[in-house]
Amino acid sequence: MIPLSEAQGFVLEACAPGPTRRVDLDDALGCVVAEPVVATEPVPPFVNSSRDGFALRAVDSRSAGPDQPRSLRVVTTIMAGSAFAGTIGPGQAARIMTGAPLPAGADAVCMLEDCSEGAEPGTVVIDHPVVEGEAVRAVGEDVGVGELVTGAGTVLAPGHLGALANQGLEAVLVHPRPRIGVLSTGDELVSGPGPLAPGMIRDANRHTLLGLVRRQGWDPVDLGIVGDDEAALSEVLDRGAADCDAVVTSGGVSVGDLDIVKVVLEKRSGGTMRWMQVAIRPAKPFAFGTLAGPGTPVFGLPGNPVSAMVSFELFVRPGVRRMSGHRVLHRPVVTAGTEVGLPRQPDGKIHFVRARLFLDDRGGWRVRPVDGQDSHQLRAMADANALVVLPDGDGVAVGEPVEVMLIDPEQLGREVVGTGSPPW
Amino acid sequence: MIPLSEAQGFVLEACAPGPTRRVDLDDALGCVVAEPVVATEPVPPFVNSSRDGFALRAVDSRSAGPDQPRSLRVVTTIMAGSAFAGTIGPGQAARIMTGAPLPAGADAVCMLEDCSEGAEPGTVVIDHPVVEGEAVRAVGEDVGVGELVTGAGTVLAPGHLGALANQGLEAVLVHPRPRIGVLSTGDELVSGPGPLAPGMIRDANRHTLLGLVRRQGWDPVDLGIVGDDEAALSEVLDRGAADCDAVVTSGGVSVGDLDIVKVVLEKRSGGTMRWMQVAIRPAKPFAFGTLAGPGTPVFGLPGNPVSAMVSFELFVRPGVRRMSGHRVLHRPVVTAGTEVGLPRQPDGKIHFVRARLFLDDRGGWRVRPVDGQDSHQLRAMADANALVVLPDGDGVAVGEPVEVMLIDPEQLGREVVGTGSPPW
Repeated sequence: MIPLSEAQGFVLEACAPGPTRRVDLDDALGCVVAEPVVATEPVPPFVNSSRDGFALRAVDSRSAGPDQPRSLRVVTTIMAGSAFAGTIGPGQAARIMTGAPLPAGADAVCMLEDCSEGAEPGTVVIDHPVVEGEAVRAVGEDVGVGELVTGAGTVLAPGHLGALANQGLEAVLVHPRPRIGVLSTGDELVSGPGPLAPGMIRDANRHTLLGLVRRQGWDPVDLGIVGDDEAALSEVLDRGAADCDAVVTSGGVSVGDLDIVKVVLEKRSGGTMRWMQVAIRPAKPFAFGTLAGPGTPVFGLPGNPVSAMVSFELFVRPGVRRMSGHRVLHRPVVTAGTEVGLPRQPDGKIHFVRARLFLDDRGGWRVRPVDGQDSHQLRAMADANALVVLPDGDGVAVGEPVEVMLIDPEQLGREVVGTGSPPW
Repeated sequence: MIPLSEAQGFVLEACAPGPTRRVDLDDALGCVVAEPVVATEPVPPFVNSSRDGFALRAVDSRSAGPDQPRSLRVVTTIMAGSAFAGTIGPGQAARIMTGAPLPAGADAVCMLEDCSEGAEPGTVVIDHPVVEGEAVRAVGEDVGVGELVTGAGTVLAPGHLGALANQGLEAVLVHPRPRIGVLSTGDELVSGPGPLAPGMIRDANRHTLLGLVRRQGWDPVDLGIVGDDEAALSEVLDRGAADCDAVVTSGGVSVGDLDIVKVVLEKRSGGTMRWMQVAIRPAKPFAFGTLAGPGTPVFGLPGNPVSAMVSFELFVRPGVRRMSGHRVLHRPVVTAGTEVGLPRQPDGKIHFVRARLFLDDRGGWRVRPVDGQDSHQLRAMADANALVVLPDGDGVAVGEPVEVMLIDPEQLGREVVGTGSPPW
């Protein structure tokens, strides 16, 4: 057995960041930016009003004293997208909308709530004096020319896409979303409906792994099921190597499995495959190498469905994230109190206990294992949002703190349930 | 101004769960299951071995006493996917691989590590006695016939897809992934490169909102930019109503905006539009109604990019989640210590402060506002993963606990950075 860190190190070493490409903004969500984008245009591009109100010379708003509110003549109305060619002179004001360009001559905006209608038609009374620059957005107040819009390494969130569009950009140089091929191996696997022949089982792993790929924001490529047939397996691996950035197989990597997957992977990888027994439970057997030719990484996951999922989290996810330019490779780990004791026996392995992580009433982390911890119990694993990391030893008692990997951050407890409003 | 809860209630009332459809498993990730799926087949479908080792009659492993390890004759080898037609008799064993069917006659498996080669060829010595059922997986140990595979309301995670495939299912009845149209309105908006004419601004909102739609797992539909043109706007709304499950517009809903968006929405919604001033900051102006004919919900978001994003979180996301059958409609809210004071003045509104939420060294929540809190400062908002909820009042001092909505759960602090291994 080798330590988990050694197996992960072996994978990450081979998963160097891949080529970059200019990608349409609307296809770049979640991608990692490959070169800094520096603003060439200020945002906003012109001085504009932050409120609906009246643009004026601030001095005019205070010249009459607190007891004599100043009346100004309204010379125009300026909507967002329009412009006023003239100049606001002394004693004048322009009705102005949020986002509309501040007219020449004006240096402040008095918001609607602080004005009232003048006695004379076409006038406005300023009830509260304003200072220069009030309710005015300066050029470049969001982003100035020369400022960084997105640095190299930025993981593009929705707001970044808008910020890039604000620079007139339609595409951005990123590590593109990887295409990940998923393949199940084994003569015993059956896809789709119909009765099962003796000894046959249904292929759950491919659907689970395609779902995991999709959940990371990667593009899944279904490579199907391949039986224990050397020519067929070779053909599919060639197709995966040509069409995908990485290939994920499940089955055929355990000591007790038929040798066909091992023989073919050994051959197609030009001997780079490493067959590992990792000191973890579940997911002890794991193989990794790169396919000859394009050097496409291939992850050989065990066939047990729970093992395949854990192996995906510990090896495929960090490896493909590194290929995709990510700097944060691993899941967040939090310290939580366990709701039940988690006894185990020393066996030289780290145990990963499938669990629900949630926040208690005081906002503290709590964790509770799901029922069914054997490596074939997929139904129980499906509901887990976390893996408790139990180091080698005798386990922990109820209430003790444990380290927990949050594998499904979308699923956190203490959400507000129902159609009512949130807690404010 | 109306309370946030009233505005949200108005939206949620109109966003009733929509029609359900049978969807391919590989397209159902994240969808909400519409009817319970009960197992019709046991998983695993047959008794099988949980280890590589030797299948035998347990009684044979212990009959010789601790000092006389029992030697058994190996009559066959059983791989996963194969079957043995014969029966294991007294004094016999079968070499068996993980997942392979337990042969008739055998009632336990002695794992490889507890066996050694026999002195005679074709024999195995059982070093440690086993008990009946040891290393054996019973039929239905993952899921038994009649057990629930996924209940109505289950949000499909990757493991659920595998669990459904294990029932021979290729599709599942769900609330399908919604198609959400995104539209920017205003004569001042420009798309793509090229210099900006005076008073014009680039359209950031559409890219941001399309990204937000995609991030929820919904299908984005780009309805483009529509200028202040009644016929063009009507045409696009008709297209959105026909092609989308909901339409999200930005711009044109503030008091100070041109009336064209208001006139057209009023007309196309058959008067169902409600023009709201919500007691929140940012994102005070908000409009909502349903388009006449198909009754497609239309969300009228403000044009300021930060306001549009906050409005999306508070109204669009819970509304569309309700339409999609979700029971958890709102983001998780946690209590965090603030790293800086967050002063504010009473104005009758709840303030949403854009911030980074992270875990400190002891696993506690901490929050720090991003620089640039004005509603046009998109660049700063892009980096926020949370909104601090500041109720009306004078704000909070440094270190005090605040309620925080986690709007980007994928971005949590204390991740392990770099290519090294995680903290175990």
